[in-house]
Amino acid sequence: MSVLIRGGTIVTADRTYRGDVYSENGTIKAIGEKLDVPAGAEIVDAGGCYVMPGGIDPHTHMELPFMGTVASEDFFTGTTAGAAGGTTMIIDFVIPSPQQNIMEAYKTWRGWSEKAATDYSFHVAITWWDESVHKDMGTLVAEHGVNSFKHFMAYKGAIMAEDEVLVNSFTRARELGAICTVHAENGELVFHLQQELLKKGITGPEGHPLSRPPEVEGEAANRAIRVAQVLDVPLYVVHNSCIESLEAITRARQEGQRVFGEVLAGHLLVDDSVYRHPDWDFAAAHVMSPPFRSKKHQDALWRGLQSGNLQTTATDHCCFCAPQKAAGRDDFTIIPNGTAGIEDRMGVLWHHGVNSGKLTMNEFVAATSSNAAKIFNIYPRKGSITVGADADVIVWDPKKSRTISAKTHHQNIDFNIFEGMTVTGANTMTMSQGKIVYQDGEVRTERGVGRYIDRPPFASYYDALKIKHEREQPVPVERPQAAE
Amino acid sequence: MSVLIRGGTIVTADRTYRGDVYSENGTIKAIGEKLDVPAGAEIVDAGGCYVMPGGIDPHTHMELPFMGTVASEDFFTGTTAGAAGGTTMIIDFVIPSPQQNIMEAYKTWRGWSEKAATDYSFHVAITWWDESVHKDMGTLVAEHGVNSFKHFMAYKGAIMAEDEVLVNSFTRARELGAICTVHAENGELVFHLQQELLKKGITGPEGHPLSRPPEVEGEAANRAIRVAQVLDVPLYVVHNSCIESLEAITRARQEGQRVFGEVLAGHLLVDDSVYRHPDWDFAAAHVMSPPFRSKKHQDALWRGLQSGNLQTTATDHCCFCAPQKAAGRDDFTIIPNGTAGIEDRMGVLWHHGVNSGKLTMNEFVAATSSNAAKIFNIYPRKGSITVGADADVIVWDPKKSRTISAKTHHQNIDFNIFEGMTVTGANTMTMSQGKIVYQDGEVRTERGVGRYIDRPPFASYYDALKIKHEREQPVPVERPQAAE
Amino acid sequence: MSVLIRGGTIVTADRTYRGDVYSENGTIKAIGEKLDVPAGAEIVDAGGCYVMPGGIDPHTHMELPFMGTVASEDFFTGTTAGAAGGTTMIIDFVIPSPQQNIMEAYKTWRGWSEKAATDYSFHVAITWWDESVHKDMGTLVAEHGVNSFKHFMAYKGAIMAEDEVLVNSFTRARELGAICTVHAENGELVFHLQQELLKKGITGPEGHPLSRPPEVEGEAANRAIRVAQVLDVPLYVVHNSCIESLEAITRARQEGQRVFGEVLAGHLLVDDSVYRHPDWDFAAAHVMSPPFRSKKHQDALWRGLQSGNLQTTATDHCCFCAPQKAAGRDDFTIIPNGTAGIEDRMGVLWHHGVNSGKLTMNEFVAATSSNAAKIFNIYPRKGSITVGADADVIVWDPKKSRTISAKTHHQNIDFNIFEGMTVTGANTMTMSQGKIVYQDGEVRTERGVGRYIDRPPFASYYDALKIKHEREQPVPVERPQAAE
Amino acid sequence: MSVLIRGGTIVTADRTYRGDVYSENGTIKAIGEKLDVPAGAEIVDAGGCYVMPGGIDPHTHMELPFMGTVASEDFFTGTTAGAAGGTTMIIDFVIPSPQQNIMEAYKTWRGWSEKAATDYSFHVAITWWDESVHKDMGTLVAEHGVNSFKHFMAYKGAIMAEDEVLVNSFTRARELGAICTVHAENGELVFHLQQELLKKGITGPEGHPLSRPPEVEGEAANRAIRVAQVLDVPLYVVHNSCIESLEAITRARQEGQRVFGEVLAGHLLVDDSVYRHPDWDFAAAHVMSPPFRSKKHQDALWRGLQSGNLQTTATDHCCFCAPQKAAGRDDFTIIPNGTAGIEDRMGVLWHHGVNSGKLTMNEFVAATSSNAAKIFNIYPRKGSITVGADADVIVWDPKKSRTISAKTHHQNIDFNIFEGMTVTGANTMTMSQGKIVYQDGEVRTERGVGRYIDRPPFASYYDALKIKHEREQPVPVERPQAAE
Repeated sequence: MSVLIRGGTIVTADRTYRGDVYSENGTIKAIGEKLDVPAGAEIVDAGGCYVMPGGIDPHTHMELPFMGTVASEDFFTGTTAGAAGGTTMIIDFVIPSPQQNIMEAYKTWRGWSEKAATDYSFHVAITWWDESVHKDMGTLVAEHGVNSFKHFMAYKGAIMAEDEVLVNSFTRARELGAICTVHAENGELVFHLQQELLKKGITGPEGHPLSRPPEVEGEAANRAIRVAQVLDVPLYVVHNSCIESLEAITRARQEGQRVFGEVLAGHLLVDDSVYRHPDWDFAAAHVMSPPFRSKKHQDALWRGLQSGNLQTTATDHCCFCAPQKAAGRDDFTIIPNGTAGIEDRMGVLWHHGVNSGKLTMNEFVAATSSNAAKIFNIYPRKGSITVGADADVIVWDPKKSRTISAKTHHQNIDFNIFEGMTVTGANTMTMSQGKIVYQDGEVRTERGVGRYIDRPPFASYYDALKIKHEREQPVPVERPQAAE
Repeated sequence: MSVLIRGGTIVTADRTYRGDVYSENGTIKAIGEKLDVPAGAEIVDAGGCYVMPGGIDPHTHMELPFMGTVASEDFFTGTTAGAAGGTTMIIDFVIPSPQQNIMEAYKTWRGWSEKAATDYSFHVAITWWDESVHKDMGTLVAEHGVNSFKHFMAYKGAIMAEDEVLVNSFTRARELGAICTVHAENGELVFHLQQELLKKGITGPEGHPLSRPPEVEGEAANRAIRVAQVLDVPLYVVHNSCIESLEAITRARQEGQRVFGEVLAGHLLVDDSVYRHPDWDFAAAHVMSPPFRSKKHQDALWRGLQSGNLQTTATDHCCFCAPQKAAGRDDFTIIPNGTAGIEDRMGVLWHHGVNSGKLTMNEFVAATSSNAAKIFNIYPRKGSITVGADADVIVWDPKKSRTISAKTHHQNIDFNIFEGMTVTGANTMTMSQGKIVYQDGEVRTERGVGRYIDRPPFASYYDALKIKHEREQPVPVERPQAAE
Repeated sequence: MSVLIRGGTIVTADRTYRGDVYSENGTIKAIGEKLDVPAGAEIVDAGGCYVMPGGIDPHTHMELPFMGTVASEDFFTGTTAGAAGGTTMIIDFVIPSPQQNIMEAYKTWRGWSEKAATDYSFHVAITWWDESVHKDMGTLVAEHGVNSFKHFMAYKGAIMAEDEVLVNSFTRARELGAICTVHAENGELVFHLQQELLKKGITGPEGHPLSRPPEVEGEAANRAIRVAQVLDVPLYVVHNSCIESLEAITRARQEGQRVFGEVLAGHLLVDDSVYRHPDWDFAAAHVMSPPFRSKKHQDALWRGLQSGNLQTTATDHCCFCAPQKAAGRDDFTIIPNGTAGIEDRMGVLWHHGVNSGKLTMNEFVAATSSNAAKIFNIYPRKGSITVGADADVIVWDPKKSRTISAKTHHQNIDFNIFEGMTVTGANTMTMSQGKIVYQDGEVRTERGVGRYIDRPPFASYYDALKIKHEREQPVPVERPQAAE
Repeated sequence: MSVLIRGGTIVTADRTYRGDVYSENGTIKAIGEKLDVPAGAEIVDAGGCYVMPGGIDPHTHMELPFMGTVASEDFFTGTTAGAAGGTTMIIDFVIPSPQQNIMEAYKTWRGWSEKAATDYSFHVAITWWDESVHKDMGTLVAEHGVNSFKHFMAYKGAIMAEDEVLVNSFTRARELGAICTVHAENGELVFHLQQELLKKGITGPEGHPLSRPPEVEGEAANRAIRVAQVLDVPLYVVHNSCIESLEAITRARQEGQRVFGEVLAGHLLVDDSVYRHPDWDFAAAHVMSPPFRSKKHQDALWRGLQSGNLQTTATDHCCFCAPQKAAGRDDFTIIPNGTAGIEDRMGVLWHHGVNSGKLTMNEFVAATSSNAAKIFNIYPRKGSITVGADADVIVWDPKKSRTISAKTHHQNIDFNIFEGMTVTGANTMTMSQGKIVYQDGEVRTERGVGRYIDRPPFASYYDALKIKHEREQPVPVERPQAAE
């Protein structure tokens, strides 16, 4: 299949220019002004619109078994919703249960993901430690294209990684050239606060943010950063929601440490008043961790994106419908944690970021696509408009307005945290692997055509780390033997 | 016994003025210019000198059983050395072994301390947790004058308090009106680095600072501060040695949190080159935790004192002689940790602080005495020159020079980390409980006359915390029952 | 006259204790529990109340000629209103016109102030420079008890001090042992913004804050701080209203610089929405510089007080009634700048500071009285409860509530920025120079009994500066003469 | 002319990959693995080497008339030396004297620059203000390809721009879509310190850094940043040499402000001990402003590059030979300010940046070339390896070592601040406009072939500013007319 996207303005992370984009067999073959139309090529008219790399959502949880239920969105429906919104790749998570064999978990998730409509990859969570985990990390990197490992510092009694696990896993990742990622919340404090709140009769969703105040997140982010600093391993902090964790990342980056930060569309735009909503279902629908925060945190997160201290935007897309959320009706601590967002990330970020003057278009592309590709070492195959890159491309109409609603979205969930928000700027065409999977409202995704994308270790930021590491090897002091 | 200190200039934390000080039966009875000489009063001529509150060292470990040996300085020799240097009170530590009954440990230490020559008190360490600990903390506060509890975040496999212990103990301290204190180093990282270094053949004292880099301390300081912030309890971070922990304290204080910081005389003046000294004994004599740091950290610590972000100076006086240190000749991780300093703290701080223009005399008094008294709630009984206060007073000659040496010091240890340093400014008279215990080089302390000083809970900083705590009680959201 | 204040709890900057206070002939003669009643002494029953040092307002402008009119409050009415609210001393400002002889201006103000009811002193503004100013600064310090000089960095075309004046005046102050103070706003930017706003048709009071955004204040604060740092002179930044200037002060203090910061009661409690009020008179009544700010700035200022990075509270009391304000009806840039506050500062700070758990009572005393006395070197004569101190004392009932209103206040102005605010905590008795000048609602001040208070140079913070200055004298490099 | 660079590894700001680069008639025509050799193409074998965009030095002063003399390096010798070191473009400065017509100055510089060997452009300094300057700025942007204006905040009595000039010029630049740049030093303080030092007998080069301490630079940087913030204009701070200015930039960037920072190779690597060298000529040879700083500042500047808070590296190449420097033999304030560096910037930055593990190769390219091209809006024509870009390309041998010396350099100056430094990593071929101008030690530049490069206004960072500016237009409050 071949497609010529004609007449658009190409917007990438580093520039904006007029140009046509021609792809063939899933790959971009030519870029230039007024390209000839190859025989048989389908023509997409991008007049007046922007042609950009498809979005990459580096944080999703399709069909995740979690808190006694399973996320309602599967790999097909989820990647389809993504495609409808301009996202052409996800990085999901393999999350072994404690003591579960890592390779076994990996294979299970690979099985589930076979139904995906667009390309995808997997971070693998390290939730416990023994020699088999050490060995399996090596296998995953060497043979299975995994270059990132996730650590949950919260969820005590379940998947929480204690400091000892962090230290072991980070050390191993360092050897393998992988990047470590963390969900940063102090699980011990969360657990304590949950018990205190329940004792005081706070059982509703309003207890959720009270049990996970920003300090709890800031503490864990700083801890992970310091562990990574000592062990000299690159770190990626997922879903930063607050000033405290942003500051920890910013400090580390100012010191030259290789630390990256992600922010969710939801944390940029939804505030914590939702948890005190009189409708329990509404409040519970917003239960995710870390929770939504007050306005001042949102302002800070935007500034984090602007300054480049936060590099990526994601969604933590993890869908639970009202009946699933209802499990925690009498106890907020057992409401399944998660909200949707994959379909709307690009739109809300454009509207509130670019249209408001906070971000340039180039910064938008960086924050929604290119930076994730670079950090997870699949750039320029993904995240770029370059000859040879995968033809994951979108056409973006900056004038098109739409109103977000669960009634019309493609996500398999009965709720939308952006319900009723009208945004200007939307994709009119999504191309994945050189095929048009969405155009002008029509979804054309196919189940199972998404490919697993290998991600090689030793991304460019390891260049410097390797040299530094070698140079800083400690040397023993030569001491004359004391006479005895 | 009555004493009139005549003709001096009184220097306190808040002012400097000419005045005589008259004490009787251990208490200051009168202050004023040209006081009459009461019959029978001994006269001390302070002409040209400063009259100041005796020093308080809030961090000592006399005769501590630690790392397979016992600190060589006992409560009598240690308080005597302190008196010789102008320090008239110490706060030492009760350190129960894990699983040891807290009250039992407390009583053991009270037994040891009966030989003290000057007044003293005890912080009590919480090294493990069960219901008995919860109860004993209450007993110690209510019946034994304890208002501070210590937590070691390092020393994995020994006295390290995991986050769960921190959370429980801090919560309990909050109820009791006590202040929490922490030794801030991430024990998990220290343990890991120690093993790595030994594997690489680094077995000498040069391995000590490499196993405890500043990040390890900064991480733990920040963690303790965040836990204290969430649990709304005042915190005192002992022996800050580096920029990283100072910054964590400074940030918290800027946010209005009630956090205090201590710095040791050694960390202000000794740098980490000592660990690479070719003489093993010399290097090992400096092994203490956290280790001495590079010059830039010292500069920062001085600025911390100047800015008031660090409030107190101490010594962590914990003496091990060369034969004791030798236990770790083949493995730096088992060198007993500790250095001396109680005798020289006042002198080196005056010389390097006041004589250099870094601190005013009033700030010197605050940093060596008054602030510790305020934080540990024994002010103005201690740390002040006021009518009614304990007559713990020193006469300080700003022109007197002396050269520090293990050969001449009164400390029961064969080494002095300030060996050869000539300082200008020294006490010529030390009065404890209204008695002259040191004068012009002559020591007159008596074994066993030191008193245990009760420290009441709910220091002034709790005023605000209590109100804040009440105001911030969470309130459940009233929600109409959903029809079911 | 002699007075015994009996049965109260004495609250000072450093402690809280039960005690009676006896004064005679204007001075505190005795403090103690259950003092005997001297013959002829008036008795004040302070049962259940706090006995505290009278407030010091270090920033007022009584009967100031400014912007074409004269402030409506004179030294008698102003100090009387202060006394009614618990403030017993003010430091006002001598503000010479550019080119006006400084001594002449000083004498003019001394003449006006003779009607004062309580004690007072003067900062002197340096608004221009020549040799006579250099000389007069010396005379003021040596012969007239002035130890602080003020510099306006705003008001271009009027009293603005350019950098050249700052550099000259700061250098001179350094020699004299005086402290420099600044009104920190970049006058060039303010002027530019005013013109731009008028051009755009913004002529109402809403233009006022738009012409003086926080950056303008932060810039000037930082500039003054850097100039002071280079010239090694202590600095006091008046009326900090925003995060930007607070941060500049905080950074400097962290570096050990001797910089102090003041905050006005109004900036802590009034927000900038007032300038968009539909009633022009209401909006104009709030026009002062720097303007009131948004909530986040208020939060930061409170944290500044809590952390000690701001030391003093003041009012910038400068009263203009509605007819005076009306001069700027068509042009906000000519509305006379100023608001009242001297009567309510103590009450609103207690209510919003102490009652909310932000400040302890001791911190309240420090922030309203003792710190100003220390910085301006009149402590412990003022700002303390000590034997020998001036008997400027108040009795404070923490349970007494009152509602603030222009209808009932003693200030000579038709408006109150705290109108309608109910505060709990109020003085029931004010003693000035040992005389009761206010009791239970009754004002008993006398015109002209207030004394001018000499303030000596070389406050304690100069101790360190002098030593540092000497040590840091540059030394030329000895170079062999090059053969020529 | 056509050239094929074969067998190399292409390194750009965003990636590293194997590829040949083919250029024709000055432009890159093809990039790919194993390109065919076009007929007539010259072949460059880059086996084992890196192929990178030629360096851009955004801060040079060729043949500048300054301080009574003229810089010894002219546009031909200077661009030739640059080419020898791998730099293929400079941005120099037009610096009108105060009151000199701006267009006239511009034309003068354009005349001088006609001898350049490689491409170049000009920033234009605004040193004074009147209506003609306002108009000429417009002309320069509209008709002469200027998009950046420089402001000297130092050099009182000469080219110093007072705040009023800054405000006017920044405002004008904002309208025109140009970027403002500043030399940030507080000229008033520098002048004062110079006089004080001379009075104290400090007349040698050691007086130079004493007269320009870091605070002086930090103040001015912060001032310019705040002015830019208020006026909403992008700012570029040249030659940051110290922590203080880096912090000001970092703070602003964290707040989302569009501020950029440059660092000179010399400030990264030379410390201030040079000014106390016993050889006057040696010391004087290092006199430039801002001066070289102590080690801690260098460390911070490297961290600034690593964190991206500093984006560009330059040299401020401004050559004065020993006889010229000698003009200030008795008075350091008249030593002509300037040092060389254009030839060695790339080499020292690679050696100390990439070889030490501080920077990745991609970051090296960004910092030496691409970022300058983006900020000054000539990307991707310059600073990239893309089809259509100017063929300014270098081949870099990471293993080639050389020792820097004035004896062997091509710069027209008798001194090299990096004298004796051995660096590993050097260019083996430099191509400018598709022609090889340096290869394996042989220089082949031609006088006069360098082109003036137009730089269009409204770089991408203006996208956001324009929107923000429109959204933030103030709105007057509607007020009912008061009855009168």
